[in-house]
Amino acid sequence: MPKLAELAETIGAELFGDPNADISRARSFETASEGDVTLAARSDLIGRIDESRASAIIVSAPTANCARNLLIATSPKLAFARAIEALHAIRYKPLGVAADLIAGPGTKFGSDLSIHSRVTIGRDVVIGDRVTLHPGVVIGDRCSVGSDAVVHSNVSIYHDCEIGSRVIIHAGTVIGADGFSFVPDEEGHQVKLLHLGRVLIEDDCEIGANCAIDRGGFGDTVLRRGVKLDNLIQVGHNCDLGEDTVVAALTGFSGGTRAGRRCVIAGQVGTNQHVTIGDGVTIIGQAGVTKDVPDGSIIAGMGQSYNSWRRSQVLYSNLPELAARLRRLEKTVDTIGHAAKDDDE
Amino acid sequence: MPKLAELAETIGAELFGDPNADISRARSFETASEGDVTLAARSDLIGRIDESRASAIIVSAPTANCARNLLIATSPKLAFARAIEALHAIRYKPLGVAADLIAGPGTKFGSDLSIHSRVTIGRDVVIGDRVTLHPGVVIGDRCSVGSDAVVHSNVSIYHDCEIGSRVIIHAGTVIGADGFSFVPDEEGHQVKLLHLGRVLIEDDCEIGANCAIDRGGFGDTVLRRGVKLDNLIQVGHNCDLGEDTVVAALTGFSGGTRAGRRCVIAGQVGTNQHVTIGDGVTIIGQAGVTKDVPDGSIIAGMGQSYNSWRRSQVLYSNLPELAARLRRLEKTVDTIGHAAKDDDE
Amino acid sequence: MPKLAELAETIGAELFGDPNADISRARSFETASEGDVTLAARSDLIGRIDESRASAIIVSAPTANCARNLLIATSPKLAFARAIEALHAIRYKPLGVAADLIAGPGTKFGSDLSIHSRVTIGRDVVIGDRVTLHPGVVIGDRCSVGSDAVVHSNVSIYHDCEIGSRVIIHAGTVIGADGFSFVPDEEGHQVKLLHLGRVLIEDDCEIGANCAIDRGGFGDTVLRRGVKLDNLIQVGHNCDLGEDTVVAALTGFSGGTRAGRRCVIAGQVGTNQHVTIGDGVTIIGQAGVTKDVPDGSIIAGMGQSYNSWRRSQVLYSNLPELAARLRRLEKTVDTIGHAAKDDDE
Repeated sequence: MPKLAELAETIGAELFGDPNADISRARSFETASEGDVTLAARSDLIGRIDESRASAIIVSAPTANCARNLLIATSPKLAFARAIEALHAIRYKPLGVAADLIAGPGTKFGSDLSIHSRVTIGRDVVIGDRVTLHPGVVIGDRCSVGSDAVVHSNVSIYHDCEIGSRVIIHAGTVIGADGFSFVPDEEGHQVKLLHLGRVLIEDDCEIGANCAIDRGGFGDTVLRRGVKLDNLIQVGHNCDLGEDTVVAALTGFSGGTRAGRRCVIAGQVGTNQHVTIGDGVTIIGQAGVTKDVPDGSIIAGMGQSYNSWRRSQVLYSNLPELAARLRRLEKTVDTIGHAAKDDDE
Repeated sequence: MPKLAELAETIGAELFGDPNADISRARSFETASEGDVTLAARSDLIGRIDESRASAIIVSAPTANCARNLLIATSPKLAFARAIEALHAIRYKPLGVAADLIAGPGTKFGSDLSIHSRVTIGRDVVIGDRVTLHPGVVIGDRCSVGSDAVVHSNVSIYHDCEIGSRVIIHAGTVIGADGFSFVPDEEGHQVKLLHLGRVLIEDDCEIGANCAIDRGGFGDTVLRRGVKLDNLIQVGHNCDLGEDTVVAALTGFSGGTRAGRRCVIAGQVGTNQHVTIGDGVTIIGQAGVTKDVPDGSIIAGMGQSYNSWRRSQVLYSNLPELAARLRRLEKTVDTIGHAAKDDDE
Repeated sequence: MPKLAELAETIGAELFGDPNADISRARSFETASEGDVTLAARSDLIGRIDESRASAIIVSAPTANCARNLLIATSPKLAFARAIEALHAIRYKPLGVAADLIAGPGTKFGSDLSIHSRVTIGRDVVIGDRVTLHPGVVIGDRCSVGSDAVVHSNVSIYHDCEIGSRVIIHAGTVIGADGFSFVPDEEGHQVKLLHLGRVLIEDDCEIGANCAIDRGGFGDTVLRRGVKLDNLIQVGHNCDLGEDTVVAALTGFSGGTRAGRRCVIAGQVGTNQHVTIGDGVTIIGQAGVTKDVPDGSIIAGMGQSYNSWRRSQVLYSNLPELAARLRRLEKTVDTIGHAAKDDDE
């Protein structure tokens, strides 16, 4: 059980209070009790610090006359993430390689692996050190999986894909299926364009459950270092998502979409083919990205700027009132017009 | 083959007609013939009762001078659901446990199981009686699966999740992946918040194919008794969906969404984080739930009331006409203004 | 390595240039070099033909004074699809049947199969010739899979479904789960309507990764010949999608939706139950199909015609300006009204 002073150092926070307090768990504000560290980041929680039974509370600034142990951090949520990690992360222990592993010829394995039962690997695959593969994982020919990667149950990775180090892929996700490119022939039948490209998932990416990331047509579909995808996300052929970009559930990137670094893309967003989204862009939930987006923009609705969309959306809700005012005005003007005519007569 | 009188009793309907008619199947209105019971619930079908070749028709009220066998029920669709069940449900027969079952130490099994080939179960799991597990199912350590539950092919359940009795989980669904919570560090890299919570699926829930239900951060993600989810649904960490609530396909619940009892949530709906939806709420397809929703509301668009949204949407379609009227009015007023000015001169 | 004249004949293009040029690869415009054929279909690329280092370029019309080898085709993209196929398609070679295949009694197999490890097939199934089944595939009782079909990893097919010849099903997809039909009983609990229908996937369909195609209630859910689905698509019970129709990712078809032939349905589209979409209809991304759609229409927004929606959407973006003009007009009219009143006094 670490002392509070140690925890403060580990998470990069300044301690106001008892350096010798014992801390054994991280817990939510509502449930934290004796021995717990918790977070009060939202303003309503900061006002309720005295109610908490936690042994230490992470905040952004010291509170006057507060009798509690406080951990002051520039980013309290980041400090809390590190506290959870420090107190609860389970150290990796290799479980070994299950006896029923099926792997093709030429496949090479690193050391200290955790390969569960019922894993199927193709030929000429390279598996790094300390890789965890859960049951039902299928990895195609000539793939590579970097060290410390974790691939959860029933994930399917097609041939010739590269998965970086420390990548986490959640259950049911499919990497490397063919992109969706068809062209009608003379009879109107859809002819498939073969996909010769690959999927490259760079280091430190995390991909949620039941996503689908298609391989490129000629070039590759790329998730750059540190991209984080939520569940049920579609990444079309030849997309290129920039470093540290995060994407929420049920978003769909059409083929050839490029997104910059450190974007925040909310849920159920859709993009048109071949649009380019700049660095540091925020896209609001359910938005449609219909054209290129400059660096730092905030986008909502059908490719509008967020501020403009907010105003449009408020007026949309008030359209009945606007229409009524227009109608009244038409009547008034009509009356004035007639009056003016009457005057003329 | 049951007699019509028996069927009437089983489904709670009042019989007008021949109690001794033989009924062997339930069929749709268009396809029903001799020996079938069918449903005429929609008004257009009620007018076509005489066309039907069914041996019995479930309706909500008797029809004057109707020569057909009628089953009168307060909720004809409910009566029909029970008729289908009575005539077509296949009685559960245990298939036993496949020889290739992999299960960890401490895992306990109930009786009369149907565990198909290629099922993988972790340690200290509890499997109830008459549970059906299809091929490719993976269940993590310390989970429990209640009696009479059915888990379809290639479902992945992470560690420490609880599945209630009579729960049905369709193929490809993922239960218990980590919630999507990241916070940027000093270099802009996304740091993961570890997820220590669980997923609890209470009794009588049904979950569609290829859904993703994330585990909670500290507390649990909960589907309460009788929740029914369609396919491809995202349930974020720490969501809590109330009893008997039904949700259509491709809907996404952001982390911390709470929904009440008996809600009807249509397809492709999205919710903001931490919104609370009351009891008996209806959400129209593709709506965004941006703020809390009181009991009994009907919501559409971006968190609007349905009636208001309908009016806004009609006016939205007519915006070109509205704009033209505004333009005309501007011209008229301009003319009147000039005329007034001319008068003054 | 084929000569250019042969390739021209294979893909149905007219050759302007050296019939003896060697062509070994198809590549994108940006990356093509010596020995490659490429495509210049977009107008910006046609202007840059002289920059290309490709040995042949597929275009729609000859260019004056162009020193390059040109392949002229009515549909350049179609010709390019055929060129990729001609140069890169890997000829099918049967891999045989893995020793660990599990198949129920009465199941029959064609010849020249490629059944990978860890495939599980029920009883009385019919598997055609040259079928490829990847690891983790599960096929239920009484299904059929046509000749030359390819079913990728971890696909789940429930009982009594028919998969046509040359069908491709990408990884993680679920075929034949129960439709989503519930009706509340007297206590508000949701009662399931049993689903007795099937899923029929006709010849030459391709289905993306992690889709969910539900079985019919009484009748069948049908994908007609040549339907192409992208990833993460929901097809509800009793849907009927017409020949050669293509559908982009994350679209959801509610139960009973009918779509005609040669429709182009973009991503994240949703349909209401029982709507009928005509032949040759185009639906824009994120649209809601709320009512029947006539042949040849283009639909966007909430069931609007595309042209009308475009105008509405432009005016929606300009609603703040429209509201300001209305406000100004109200003031002006008010002033005129007062002035008129003053005149009268």
